[in-house]
Amino acid sequence: MLEMHCARWHSAAMEETSKFAQEARALLGERGFTCDPDLLEPWLTDWRGRFHGSAIGLASPASTQEVSDFVKLCAKHDVPIVPQGGNSGMSGGATPDKSGASVLLSLRRMNTIRSLDPEAGQTVCEAGVILQNLHEAAEEHRLRFPLTLGGKGSATVGGLISTNAGGTQVLRHGTMRAQVLGIEAVLPDGAVFDGLTALKKDNRGFDLKQLLIGSEGTLGIVTAATLRLLPAIGRRVVIWAGLGSIGDARKLLISFERALPQELEGFEVVPAHCLESVLDHMPDARAPLDGSYPWNALIELVVPDNDDADLREKVEILLAAEIENGLVADAVIAASEKQAEDFWLLRDSIAPAERAIGPAMQHDISVPVPRMPEFVEAAIPEVEKAFPGTRGVAFGHLGDGNVHFHILAPKGAVPGEWEESDGKRISRMVHDLVRAHGGSISAEHGIGQLKRDELGRLGDPVSLSLMRQIKQALDPRGLLNPGKLVPLAPEETSP
Amino acid sequence: MLEMHCARWHSAAMEETSKFAQEARALLGERGFTCDPDLLEPWLTDWRGRFHGSAIGLASPASTQEVSDFVKLCAKHDVPIVPQGGNSGMSGGATPDKSGASVLLSLRRMNTIRSLDPEAGQTVCEAGVILQNLHEAAEEHRLRFPLTLGGKGSATVGGLISTNAGGTQVLRHGTMRAQVLGIEAVLPDGAVFDGLTALKKDNRGFDLKQLLIGSEGTLGIVTAATLRLLPAIGRRVVIWAGLGSIGDARKLLISFERALPQELEGFEVVPAHCLESVLDHMPDARAPLDGSYPWNALIELVVPDNDDADLREKVEILLAAEIENGLVADAVIAASEKQAEDFWLLRDSIAPAERAIGPAMQHDISVPVPRMPEFVEAAIPEVEKAFPGTRGVAFGHLGDGNVHFHILAPKGAVPGEWEESDGKRISRMVHDLVRAHGGSISAEHGIGQLKRDELGRLGDPVSLSLMRQIKQALDPRGLLNPGKLVPLAPEETSP
Repeated sequence: MLEMHCARWHSAAMEETSKFAQEARALLGERGFTCDPDLLEPWLTDWRGRFHGSAIGLASPASTQEVSDFVKLCAKHDVPIVPQGGNSGMSGGATPDKSGASVLLSLRRMNTIRSLDPEAGQTVCEAGVILQNLHEAAEEHRLRFPLTLGGKGSATVGGLISTNAGGTQVLRHGTMRAQVLGIEAVLPDGAVFDGLTALKKDNRGFDLKQLLIGSEGTLGIVTAATLRLLPAIGRRVVIWAGLGSIGDARKLLISFERALPQELEGFEVVPAHCLESVLDHMPDARAPLDGSYPWNALIELVVPDNDDADLREKVEILLAAEIENGLVADAVIAASEKQAEDFWLLRDSIAPAERAIGPAMQHDISVPVPRMPEFVEAAIPEVEKAFPGTRGVAFGHLGDGNVHFHILAPKGAVPGEWEESDGKRISRMVHDLVRAHGGSISAEHGIGQLKRDELGRLGDPVSLSLMRQIKQALDPRGLLNPGKLVPLAPEETSP
Repeated sequence: MLEMHCARWHSAAMEETSKFAQEARALLGERGFTCDPDLLEPWLTDWRGRFHGSAIGLASPASTQEVSDFVKLCAKHDVPIVPQGGNSGMSGGATPDKSGASVLLSLRRMNTIRSLDPEAGQTVCEAGVILQNLHEAAEEHRLRFPLTLGGKGSATVGGLISTNAGGTQVLRHGTMRAQVLGIEAVLPDGAVFDGLTALKKDNRGFDLKQLLIGSEGTLGIVTAATLRLLPAIGRRVVIWAGLGSIGDARKLLISFERALPQELEGFEVVPAHCLESVLDHMPDARAPLDGSYPWNALIELVVPDNDDADLREKVEILLAAEIENGLVADAVIAASEKQAEDFWLLRDSIAPAERAIGPAMQHDISVPVPRMPEFVEAAIPEVEKAFPGTRGVAFGHLGDGNVHFHILAPKGAVPGEWEESDGKRISRMVHDLVRAHGGSISAEHGIGQLKRDELGRLGDPVSLSLMRQIKQALDPRGLLNPGKLVPLAPEETSP
């Protein structure tokens, strides 16, 4: 196989590459390194199909030591490395560029849960452990890992850390950053940073772990992490509420945060248009409320034990009071776990339902939580006015100040064409509006290659300069995930 | 004044310094810059009196813009800067060296609470805001800032951030890092990093805020921060329990963490020797329990409202069960707020009581929480054996894996002499033992100048190298707080 696939290089430069591939194969073995195009192919395109690249080969080391040795080999041969976990990222951060000069480094074979200490509420996982498997391992001990998201069947611990992933439980438990107690990573020179020991208090200088979290593989390759586990959920109380405005949704959020700060786990908003799209898309689905309301809130609260009587009573009192004083138009508490699941299914079906309607530009944005209603109410009409026929919808994690802000194409827009013409202009306008409201153009999906140039255009110059200084200091030859996350300096040109 | 104090330099090098002082005075005005030795003197020694330095002058800018302009002036004249908050640090991190070449930069005049949003639970404070004042500002809105410590009357927000301060509420609320939602800082070139906007989700690259927290002023000067506020405490339940061993204390901690995870705020351990020292030291103090036990636990739980009946009942049931099964020897719940305060006074008096006995080497150390009992039980006899006549005591934040580990001098040891001879050897031994148990030689007090060389001796070489690379990248001329925190590379010599 190696001869067949890896020895096709002929020119002098290619001879060097061939030599690298042979050494990689010798180092990692047959399972650990391949140049077979058929084996490489699935990993050269991001799962949404927006980016396609090329690579010398695919390395799949089985241990931290192998990652370290392989990174040293790459450094010796000046071969750039693109680390990859589950390949379910949203911003093309794990897809190589088209040059074919880099090598893919998959962490998927490093999928051991090294330890799980139920008493301490901690687990040490290798980078390739899939989120779903981590959930199941925790459940065996009546614990839970308090982060989940749509791609849990493929997303890996390493990828979640490198992108500081979010999800639907951030309101209560924070992003991936808040779950990470320790990190092991291989640095650009192959050295192993061993920060796995979980110390609750440790003031021995710069918190290097924090620098690696969310750095999208540009500073180091996460090989393992110590993660926190929480007691499993006993029962949950799920509410669907009809509201007159997104401002009222924010007021209801504050009301829940005040009354039940420990129990509140999720607060999602769904505008009327999104609910209608979902009901059109799924003929079997039913609207939770009889009437139709401009905005809906999906609220989840949990208790650690099986006794939710007290929580239900408190929720009923709170909702009755908010209906009485006119904040909530109507509301229903899921009567069963089945009904709770149905409510969440409505929420989770928005993206596919909107996609069925036609092309849309999707934006993962955040603004300070208090400013979200004002932002949504100002930005949607502004975009709709500038691009007649479009329709703006905002839905999702109101409690985190993070909505998915979609602009649907006018009727008759040609898919593929529209995104490249008006679509791009719309995204720039949305990002400009986000910046004007003090927000972020990437709330939870990261920058990758998708938003790198927009970050360069809109990012604070002081922050960008700091990022470039750090990248240059830690990876002076630019071997780790080149072209991702860190915008080039103004004087540099895009590759 | 300027002429009197700042114009005494005669040599050529001193002329340059004089020129710097004159420009600083012109920039910051009479209140903003002084070379008056009487005004400088109180700030040239750390509050514990262990370090004494010298400085060109004392700058006290009143705004972020003034800090920025002043840092640029220092860069122009190559004058190193020692930032200082309340000067109540434990590691000499805010005390200049003896060369007299650097300038003190006090943030104390920047003491404005720029905003406080009770609805969002956020406040924007300037670096010089004193912790006590922040507590009071929060209380006015029935909120609280969930971090407190002994020096709250002098410690400033900027200093707390720069040292990632801990305190007695870390178990439930985390260190200062967990309270910081945003940061404004002046970088070594005078540029202002504006990261004050609090976004719950923001994945636009490296989290630069995290890098600045705990960096002890070596990478930037924190000028303001956005901090989180929580609902005020309604009632607290405070318990004193007698236990047979520190292992039992850990078991009781787990029991409370399981049963009352939301309510548990503090879990401190006090060995018999410490309690006896306190009772000897304070004739009016009473032991909470009739009997004497090898170990005591001081436990605090809180509820946000005024109804603690339910919590008290749960605590009583838990304690009764643990007495029944032999884990707890005896326990008492404070019957009044006065009694709760008395219990805490016993805990807070350990340090002064031990000091009254004689010299001691104090160590602020942490190990993984599960390993703390094993560490204490192994390390104390080992040190006592190696240094006959000494006595080891460990007390404090068991819930954080952080104890104050004091080795008391043998009777007859000469204060001042003992610390410099056996004392230093003892500290090295303690630090070696901490490292062998996977712990940290600085849990919450930071490194400063006190532990810099020990960090260099014991720190992980990969981490130290990363720290040096980052320091070199962000402050290539080494103008920010030189000689603190970052150990010199092996080939460099101590200044």
